[in-house]
Amino acid sequence: MEAKMTDIAAIYGHIGANKASHVQKIREFLQQPSVSDGDPKPVRQCAELLRQYYMDLGCVEADLVETGGHPAVWAFYDAGASKTLINYCMYDTQPVRVDEVWAAPPFDAEIVPGSLIGRSDFDSVMVARGAFNSKGPYRSWLNALESIVAVEGTLPVNIAYLAEGEEELGSPHLAGVVDRYLDRLRGGSAVLSIDAAQNEHGRISLDLGCKGNIYFEMECTSLAWARGARREVHGMMRSVLDSPVIHLIQAVASMFGPDGYTPIVDGLDSDIEPWAEDLELIQKLAADPAYLRELAEEHDVIAWLGDMREPTEILRRYFYGSNINVNGIKSGYTGPGAVTMIPSEAVCKVNIRLVPNQEPESVIQSVRRHLDQNGFSDIAISAPQSTGIMDRQYTGYTWAKTSRSSGIVRAALSTYEAYGAPLRVTPHSAGSGPSYLFNRAPLQLPICSFGLGHGGRQHVANEYLVLEGAGAVLGLTSAEQAYVDLLFTYAAQSHESN
Amino acid sequence: MEAKMTDIAAIYGHIGANKASHVQKIREFLQQPSVSDGDPKPVRQCAELLRQYYMDLGCVEADLVETGGHPAVWAFYDAGASKTLINYCMYDTQPVRVDEVWAAPPFDAEIVPGSLIGRSDFDSVMVARGAFNSKGPYRSWLNALESIVAVEGTLPVNIAYLAEGEEELGSPHLAGVVDRYLDRLRGGSAVLSIDAAQNEHGRISLDLGCKGNIYFEMECTSLAWARGARREVHGMMRSVLDSPVIHLIQAVASMFGPDGYTPIVDGLDSDIEPWAEDLELIQKLAADPAYLRELAEEHDVIAWLGDMREPTEILRRYFYGSNINVNGIKSGYTGPGAVTMIPSEAVCKVNIRLVPNQEPESVIQSVRRHLDQNGFSDIAISAPQSTGIMDRQYTGYTWAKTSRSSGIVRAALSTYEAYGAPLRVTPHSAGSGPSYLFNRAPLQLPICSFGLGHGGRQHVANEYLVLEGAGAVLGLTSAEQAYVDLLFTYAAQSHESN
Repeated sequence: MEAKMTDIAAIYGHIGANKASHVQKIREFLQQPSVSDGDPKPVRQCAELLRQYYMDLGCVEADLVETGGHPAVWAFYDAGASKTLINYCMYDTQPVRVDEVWAAPPFDAEIVPGSLIGRSDFDSVMVARGAFNSKGPYRSWLNALESIVAVEGTLPVNIAYLAEGEEELGSPHLAGVVDRYLDRLRGGSAVLSIDAAQNEHGRISLDLGCKGNIYFEMECTSLAWARGARREVHGMMRSVLDSPVIHLIQAVASMFGPDGYTPIVDGLDSDIEPWAEDLELIQKLAADPAYLRELAEEHDVIAWLGDMREPTEILRRYFYGSNINVNGIKSGYTGPGAVTMIPSEAVCKVNIRLVPNQEPESVIQSVRRHLDQNGFSDIAISAPQSTGIMDRQYTGYTWAKTSRSSGIVRAALSTYEAYGAPLRVTPHSAGSGPSYLFNRAPLQLPICSFGLGHGGRQHVANEYLVLEGAGAVLGLTSAEQAYVDLLFTYAAQSHESN
Repeated sequence: MEAKMTDIAAIYGHIGANKASHVQKIREFLQQPSVSDGDPKPVRQCAELLRQYYMDLGCVEADLVETGGHPAVWAFYDAGASKTLINYCMYDTQPVRVDEVWAAPPFDAEIVPGSLIGRSDFDSVMVARGAFNSKGPYRSWLNALESIVAVEGTLPVNIAYLAEGEEELGSPHLAGVVDRYLDRLRGGSAVLSIDAAQNEHGRISLDLGCKGNIYFEMECTSLAWARGARREVHGMMRSVLDSPVIHLIQAVASMFGPDGYTPIVDGLDSDIEPWAEDLELIQKLAADPAYLRELAEEHDVIAWLGDMREPTEILRRYFYGSNINVNGIKSGYTGPGAVTMIPSEAVCKVNIRLVPNQEPESVIQSVRRHLDQNGFSDIAISAPQSTGIMDRQYTGYTWAKTSRSSGIVRAALSTYEAYGAPLRVTPHSAGSGPSYLFNRAPLQLPICSFGLGHGGRQHVANEYLVLEGAGAVLGLTSAEQAYVDLLFTYAAQSHESN
């Protein structure tokens, strides 16, 4: 099948004509909670719903894949095509925290004026946990596929679907699922994931990979330390008792230089040389003043680290800075008033992003060695208990990189161009995902995220997805139409170019 | 009136005969919640109840004293005696925290077998917030006074009662109340506070004063620091954003030597020479192996600070060690799972105990200067917000010391001896209280805490007061009888000896 034989206009028309039902499908998917760090029952129900979606599309093969945690979903659409695209997605979401204040219930997926959530630049947004990250865009991609099948009778490529329900937990079981389907996945030529990638100004970042990430807890207890008291005791004992919380504070402080940023952990490089092609991309991004300005606006930045001002320096750090982050710390009494006590335990949540060529095992070992060699051998390092990971000291994954010349990236770039979306290509996302499972050995596949449209506030209150376009931001219908273009562009490429 | 004229046996008899009603009075007092760090209404109701108690005793003058916070209670019992004792008490208690598990509701003041709260060494205990600290013992003292008045018609000394409802908040308004009644208080010869001072083995510590204490919060916010982001943001931004929580951790770490104990804050002496008479007391206590053993048992000590083993060294630190304590720290995400974020604020609760001759203003200034000179001028120091203190950076008070040769101490010592209670005299309590208001200029009065009987678990779950004696621990009736002895012994002393 060749793209020119396809009636793209008819598919566009189908998408436009079915807008109401497409919106309703997105709401349906979002109204089914799938908080991976929560009750497993609704998560499984969401997996079942997704499996049904794949069957509705025409997948004869569509299975829940049992793991030690939430199930994955595997499905295969056999178009009889010579090319197979692997479509990875996450169907889980972050939790809703008790202190989050939402304009509409986070699992009602209500459509509200943007002004209601302080986004008066958009007429109409859907508000829900997962609206942007990532169930909203993913269901709109499935809407597009349904329209293709409705008009054309089939898809232009085979698609192997792999959906996981534990991305927000650090994908603890995804490696096992990939391993189980390895032979099937070897038949794929590229991996596509789905996004609503436009920022509020309509600009797109196409990331040629992502950082890795290791996440762990550092804990000091008086029992493990064999100092202080067996329980929290009155603060008047402090002059004769060691304090676990101060010990933990000293351990964390020992990992940083005076700037509060530079890691002084042996084996954890503080200045990493970017890959040559990435340095070029960094310089290009630095030459665009809007890029940094928008990054600052999006994250309410007061000042860049250490008062950096030179764009190339800031962006080099952004993409390649080696950094240790403390996501939270907790110990003792933190309520109102003046309670004095010596806490008997203290814990903090730490993560380290990994850039090429930092690897998780080597980095966690460096941290462990640093603590051991600096008087903190009693400080425990472990994956957060709720992740259920017992066999290593962290949750997370390594980095991934895809070449700009790979077929799927070229298809994405030309589709973005066709829609006139202002485009930036970055070395990799500053965030992390389990792309390495497809991108690194043994599969070594190119992996690319694609999608027009805009959403925001992932992981916080009033997460949203834009439904009606505004300025350069595409609305839902155009975003779904763009998925069609991507797919036919990719299908039309010669095999060798992948 | 002289003690020998008094029918002590009749008073003893009255106390014994009214045991049931005395127990009921204690329950009544405890059933009226008075959590100073909570709803002000029940606190005021407790003040009213206490005022009624003073009136029932025969005080013609008995007033609620309005403050900026909870009211104090002032009352005067005019016995027409030449000597006036000042009786300070606190009528407030610590809160009950949500994570506390109680064997009986904390404001029911139920009487339960000791075994129910893991104290099978005592047949019967009253369980309530405030049972031990300090409403239980205080009401039993009032019981004793009522019996004296019932039998003798009057008390052997005048008593000026001053009760505050904010001790657990650091007595923010007590200085103002003392100031208001300064002329009346000048007429007093000593200050008595009430305790159930026996430990579980029946031993008494008579403390010749108390440590001071300053309590403050150290806070770093990205807004005050003018770094990082205006709100908490995704952890992927860490490589280009400064972190307030790491900044706070570094600030706290900067205050300690490598041992996690020795303050390295200029102006905060780490090795303070005890007063000569205190060094003698320390050596005496060190020669008693049971003292340290019981201190360790009471506080579930695993190991003494820095593995100290020499008793004199441990006790010198206990009474004179200069120490900074972190009571709690909180920032960012501390729930289950692996949420990555850069927190935009971090706060910890710190206190520093003061020994002679450390003074609050000088110590807080040393901390402020230390932070300013070490790159932490942006870290705010303030009294916990809920204390409502705006005019200084801490809540708390300075130390107090009373001579062993003062009349009230001699009366206490001889009463303890008469009851055969194993007795230890300490330089001062390792804890803190507002004694300085009476003990330091301008009043410069001796102040002493007295009471037989035993209670425990102040500030935590299952706080209790023992009702039936066991071994060397006195039961309620004997403890009330001992108050009678103390008062008549004190009254019988010649004026010059005070």
